[in-house]
Amino acid sequence: ARSYSITLLPGDGIGPEVVAVAKDVLSAAGSKEGVELRFREMLMGGAALDAAGVPLPDETLAAARASDAILLGAIGGYKWDNNEKHLKPETGLLNIRAGLGVFANLRPASVLPQLVDASTLKKEVAEGVDIMVVRELTGGIYFGKPRGFGTNDNGEETGFNTEIYSASEIDRIARVAFEVARKRGGKLCSVDKANVLEASMLWRKRVTAIASEFPDVELSHMYVDNAAMQLVRNPKQFDTIVTNNIFGDILSDEASMITGSIGMLPSASVGESGPGLFEPIHGSAPDIAGQDKANPLATILSAAMLLKYGLGVESAAKRIEAAVTETLDNGFRTGDIYSPGTLSLKRNPMTMFLSNK
Amino acid sequence: ARSYSITLLPGDGIGPEVVAVAKDVLSAAGSKEGVELRFREMLMGGAALDAAGVPLPDETLAAARASDAILLGAIGGYKWDNNEKHLKPETGLLNIRAGLGVFANLRPASVLPQLVDASTLKKEVAEGVDIMVVRELTGGIYFGKPRGFGTNDNGEETGFNTEIYSASEIDRIARVAFEVARKRGGKLCSVDKANVLEASMLWRKRVTAIASEFPDVELSHMYVDNAAMQLVRNPKQFDTIVTNNIFGDILSDEASMITGSIGMLPSASVGESGPGLFEPIHGSAPDIAGQDKANPLATILSAAMLLKYGLGVESAAKRIEAAVTETLDNGFRTGDIYSPGTLSLKRNPMTMFLSNK
Ligand SMILES: CC(C)[C@H](C(=O)O)[C@@H](O)C(=O)O
Ligand SMILES: CC(C)[C@H](C(=O)O)[C@@H](O)C(=O)O
Repeated sequence: ARSYSITLLPGDGIGPEVVAVAKDVLSAAGSKEGVELRFREMLMGGAALDAAGVPLPDETLAAARASDAILLGAIGGYKWDNNEKHLKPETGLLNIRAGLGVFANLRPASVLPQLVDASTLKKEVAEGVDIMVVRELTGGIYFGKPRGFGTNDNGEETGFNTEIYSASEIDRIARVAFEVARKRGGKLCSVDKANVLEASMLWRKRVTAIASEFPDVELSHMYVDNAAMQLVRNPKQFDTIVTNNIFGDILSDEASMITGSIGMLPSASVGESGPGLFEPIHGSAPDIAGQDKANPLATILSAAMLLKYGLGVESAAKRIEAAVTETLDNGFRTGDIYSPGTLSLKRNPMTMFLSNK
Repeated sequence: ARSYSITLLPGDGIGPEVVAVAKDVLSAAGSKEGVELRFREMLMGGAALDAAGVPLPDETLAAARASDAILLGAIGGYKWDNNEKHLKPETGLLNIRAGLGVFANLRPASVLPQLVDASTLKKEVAEGVDIMVVRELTGGIYFGKPRGFGTNDNGEETGFNTEIYSASEIDRIARVAFEVARKRGGKLCSVDKANVLEASMLWRKRVTAIASEFPDVELSHMYVDNAAMQLVRNPKQFDTIVTNNIFGDILSDEASMITGSIGMLPSASVGESGPGLFEPIHGSAPDIAGQDKANPLATILSAAMLLKYGLGVESAAKRIEAAVTETLDNGFRTGDIYSPGTLSLKRNPMTMFLSNK
């Protein structure tokens, strides 16, 4: 029997409760396919800060690296918001991304037919939206040096960061994006600010060069301010979007909100080799933690991505996706996507569907 | 009689035609109030590149500096898109902003009752939205040094930019934003990425410090990715937003699209002293240039901001705003905001309303 090891990083806020559900779902889907999944839970984020004084303990990174895939809940909370940079939960997240070398972050934003009303956009604008944002995740202004605080010629305090990309960093994320676009609608829109930033000029030049390897994919370029508008004006114009770390952070969140159901959206972060990192795109939502209100579907769908992209067990991923569809078709909803006439979703119905399959 | 000199920078694409209408409107409104406006048209953007080989001729900047206010149409077009950086129309725009020291860019995004249907957001989400984005305009990654192209340790090409803010740059934009918020709903939301970027940490620290000078304004902080979401989820939660140059570029465009009528939105860029720069937020729209299709109202409303903020002739600004309202109430629309049952807006009705007042 195939056997895989999964590192679970429950993290903070609603992280532990959604990861617990996704773990059950993973086990159930795996066993139906004769795949054994072994889980090891490790500390990360605020939970790690409280227990071990650092947001990403060495053992956590080592265990993650040694496993076949990682499932992360969410990190962060008010409690640690004023911590110094190296003691922020977010720093743990950035360090595990860098430590695993997962440079390609895939963030789907699709409007499910059952949930089209959840969008704040008019039905005719929202319906049928199916976007994949491919965000560069281990470079750019998030990691560029020099960074820090200084003093300028007037003796004033300054804060600074460096947006920097090398040709190979751009080439590899471009190739991932072209591959993704090829398997989807065949259209790739590269987003940059090449009318102002040198880092974006190189981005545009390299993405354009890599395009020659993918003659079947139609490439276009768009400035980031325009992209932020076009996502609101007509999101259906987009198929696959590729962009840098900071623009991807902003645009993928905007795109996810256009679906109206951010509690539904998974993400996958993958590298050249080594285990991938799978996490819902929502945050730790400390306000509703521990109340069994959180929508577990984003994490469950992240688990499906883990099976598909991380372990290559597509049949088990399909089982999970089918169970999610069935759960929604049967009218079960958490509060974030609840509308009159639907039923309340608790932890049990979800795993029930799976075990009946 | 009061007399002022206005520099007109028609620029490219639809710029000349919308500036021509706004000029007539300015003259008409001014003369009703006994204010004489003298106009001088100068070259900028692609038009300047074609005629003089640079996107911002020295005479243009000198004339602008010597005048009481500047009205800009729009710059840029496909023709110059592949120019080198110093020969891009956009560089002319950045240089005039820097040259005039207009560090505060005010971008209102309000949904007019007559145009609520133009938004792609559901009526109940769009109606009543009234946001002012205060964008820092002469600092940050747009101007930070070092910038350029280099070679890394692997001999690969790199492109890099520097995001940098000093305490006084943040303090002065924060003060403008607090003043603006005080005159509006009394709520200021400062947007940054302080969980990752040092430049944003200093931003948050300084904005928080300046808040003590404005105890009557309620300050909140939001991360930029969340702000991009919240603008879609519930734009009415925002009153005044203050943010850096690049985040302001993205979020103000997103906010403007939420109104659905980007052809309606003006902007004002002002500094410590010296003339302000007033321009519609839309671009040069080369596709429809010269066809009398462009909506002149964004430029006309920019002219109203010019009268109010630039010259302090608020009565004339009010005339223009009233004329715009009347034009819309009478059902006149350009194609971008046209809906069945409205009338086509050409240049004449607009100036007609004004001259009848
Ligand atoms: C928590 C934060 C550091 C992170 C990011 O900016 O990448 C988050 O917003 C995300 O998008 O995963
Ligand atoms: C044309 C471009 C340089 C400019 C900017 O990014 O500032 C524009 O997008 C704007 O917002 O005025």
